[in-house]
Amino acid sequence: MGLFLSAIPVEEAVRLVSRLASPIPGGSVPLNRAYQRVLATDITADLDIPGFDRSVVDGYGVRAAATSGVSESVPAMLNLLGRVTMGTGPSSDRAISSDVCAYVPTGGALPIGADAVVMIEHTELAGDLVLVRRPVAQGENVIRKGEDFSAGEVVLRQGTRISPRDMGALAAVGCAEVPVRAVPSVGVISTGNELVPVEAVPSIGEVRDVNAALCGAFLEHLGCNPVYYGIVRDEREALDATLERAVRECDTVLISGGSSKDDRDMTASIIAGRGEVLVHGIAIAPGKPTIIGRFQGIPVIGLPGHPASTYVVLEVIVRHLITALTGETNALPQVRRVLVRENIPSVRGREEYIRVKIEGDGVYPMFGKSGLLNTLVRSDGLVRVPAGREGFEIGEEVEVVLW
Amino acid sequence: MGLFLSAIPVEEAVRLVSRLASPIPGGSVPLNRAYQRVLATDITADLDIPGFDRSVVDGYGVRAAATSGVSESVPAMLNLLGRVTMGTGPSSDRAISSDVCAYVPTGGALPIGADAVVMIEHTELAGDLVLVRRPVAQGENVIRKGEDFSAGEVVLRQGTRISPRDMGALAAVGCAEVPVRAVPSVGVISTGNELVPVEAVPSIGEVRDVNAALCGAFLEHLGCNPVYYGIVRDEREALDATLERAVRECDTVLISGGSSKDDRDMTASIIAGRGEVLVHGIAIAPGKPTIIGRFQGIPVIGLPGHPASTYVVLEVIVRHLITALTGETNALPQVRRVLVRENIPSVRGREEYIRVKIEGDGVYPMFGKSGLLNTLVRSDGLVRVPAGREGFEIGEEVEVVLW
Repeated sequence: MGLFLSAIPVEEAVRLVSRLASPIPGGSVPLNRAYQRVLATDITADLDIPGFDRSVVDGYGVRAAATSGVSESVPAMLNLLGRVTMGTGPSSDRAISSDVCAYVPTGGALPIGADAVVMIEHTELAGDLVLVRRPVAQGENVIRKGEDFSAGEVVLRQGTRISPRDMGALAAVGCAEVPVRAVPSVGVISTGNELVPVEAVPSIGEVRDVNAALCGAFLEHLGCNPVYYGIVRDEREALDATLERAVRECDTVLISGGSSKDDRDMTASIIAGRGEVLVHGIAIAPGKPTIIGRFQGIPVIGLPGHPASTYVVLEVIVRHLITALTGETNALPQVRRVLVRENIPSVRGREEYIRVKIEGDGVYPMFGKSGLLNTLVRSDGLVRVPAGREGFEIGEEVEVVLW
Repeated sequence: MGLFLSAIPVEEAVRLVSRLASPIPGGSVPLNRAYQRVLATDITADLDIPGFDRSVVDGYGVRAAATSGVSESVPAMLNLLGRVTMGTGPSSDRAISSDVCAYVPTGGALPIGADAVVMIEHTELAGDLVLVRRPVAQGENVIRKGEDFSAGEVVLRQGTRISPRDMGALAAVGCAEVPVRAVPSVGVISTGNELVPVEAVPSIGEVRDVNAALCGAFLEHLGCNPVYYGIVRDEREALDATLERAVRECDTVLISGGSSKDDRDMTASIIAGRGEVLVHGIAIAPGKPTIIGRFQGIPVIGLPGHPASTYVVLEVIVRHLITALTGETNALPQVRRVLVRENIPSVRGREEYIRVKIEGDGVYPMFGKSGLLNTLVRSDGLVRVPAGREGFEIGEEVEVVLW
């Protein structure tokens, strides 16, 4: 267990990788290409939104005071002055006073002099007279000028990854060209003499390269552009040359594989040759043999070989490096609180991440070897067991970080 | 309130839209373009994965029986026969018997004759002798041939939207070309004489087109390709012509806007002109004035004009039409159970969807007019109040459908 003593805590590894990268300056994209991009600046409202008092119902613009005390049996009787046309401002020669009203469709501008709208359902039209059978309060059924956003107000913060709802806000404030961070390029190098490409039929002793696909899709998920460098033999010159090319072309590089100690040591030594190894071992299970370093100034992560270990390290550690790079500041994982339905044992002294399956409001651990993909694919997320605990017992409430 | 009587229940609307579309045949894409696509067929393992017994640690391949009863003080002493080389099969002329062992790196093939691997941490090398200080059980530290996936086993089901973890499974089973459904094209038409493009400065009475951006990003989020038809004036011929073009070019069409009753009635009448209006009004708040129809055989949805209403209808109703179209079968929304911290009132007789803000394990309703974007942007999701309830009270547990 001596190996864990040299491994740094997860928290420290997260802090370190978060400082290893910073967002890349971007440019701007047209609004309809902005979904899921990361905002490079705060976005403010250019004008009051809406720019005028608007009705939120089909009805009659009135002075609220004129409807005071009316009822089904004793309606107010107002002269109909005309109709507001959608898309035009209210005309000043037809102002509302206490004995007149004007029809306003939903979204139409409140007529001058009106301070509320009576829903059409609460009125009756009799010739040129409108009978109002329910009172309205001042401001009722009206969105005030600037009520949604007021001119100059910050609508969205820099670092926001743009959601569909954010797209609506950008449209409302006239942000037709959206200032965004660049999409980082992240190199993916697979190492290991046992690896063959996905399209190959592996011989005995060989396995297909799984981690490149896992890493690439994870990077896409976080808004990066993965650049694949294929499978590199476990030979010093080959890996050094590929890494050299990758750091020239990318903003950060992930090296996956090298599952045996010898391979990991070689990866670390190559990184050290033209840079520095900052971390060689994290107190996390699975995923301990993770390397964090810099090669010619570019962040490089050496991932453990087992797919499930790799995926846990991507989620728990690499995620923070990538969001530092994309500039995303609101990247909180989805979590769910559930009850433990089967004991989750763990070893004190390191953080353990257990793949789990959620059923209803309960959670079951999936104890698969970290070399297995099937438990990873069938799991719903991870339960973190802190370093100071010996697991969780049936009936305890735990938080699942959902995939 | 008579309007609600003619409106159909949410459940019925969901059933109806789900039957309105079916997945479009696709083709295949290379694995590294497959992330987030929808599988068109079940994927089976082409071979046993892994194809041989593999060590999951760095250690020595042994016969488990040879380590029976060993301890720190009384180790087994085995002759070191050699090393397994990564990527090659075990050599048959160096079989393990009860007095010999061979070094195996993590991921290496188990030597012939061995049935377990002792971790290197539990051994000591003394010349050609390996001292084993802990017993291992049969199969310990070994992944068996076919343990991850066995040949012919279904690894991923048709209709799965491919996650990063699924990408790993596809790689493992040699799925270099992935059979996927086509990406549907969905037309987005904005109507309303009050609308101006996002880049314009609205005059009094005018507002920028927000719903096209909301709809477009929502469609991208669900894996569709939005096709924008811009803003169409509320004129019968113009809308009819645009709709005619959109149904020729797209697999389904969303018409947003037309917030006033007159506009909605015109939209319904145009759809009826070359097709049928199936639903005109859903018992949902916000979002009641929703139209479901077919125009020249193509599904068409008329969305309510208010942005927040539009978004609720997209999430609650349109989502099911879109997933029927993409063929996605595992499209469950993320939900979280939280406690009500402020009463959520509602009107019995229709489903109400309340935008909410989550804080810790509690939830607060955000009572904004449905014409407002700011509450939509700042909310975390929706709480559904069933038609038979009058809301929720402080302290009750509710489920939030997260955006």
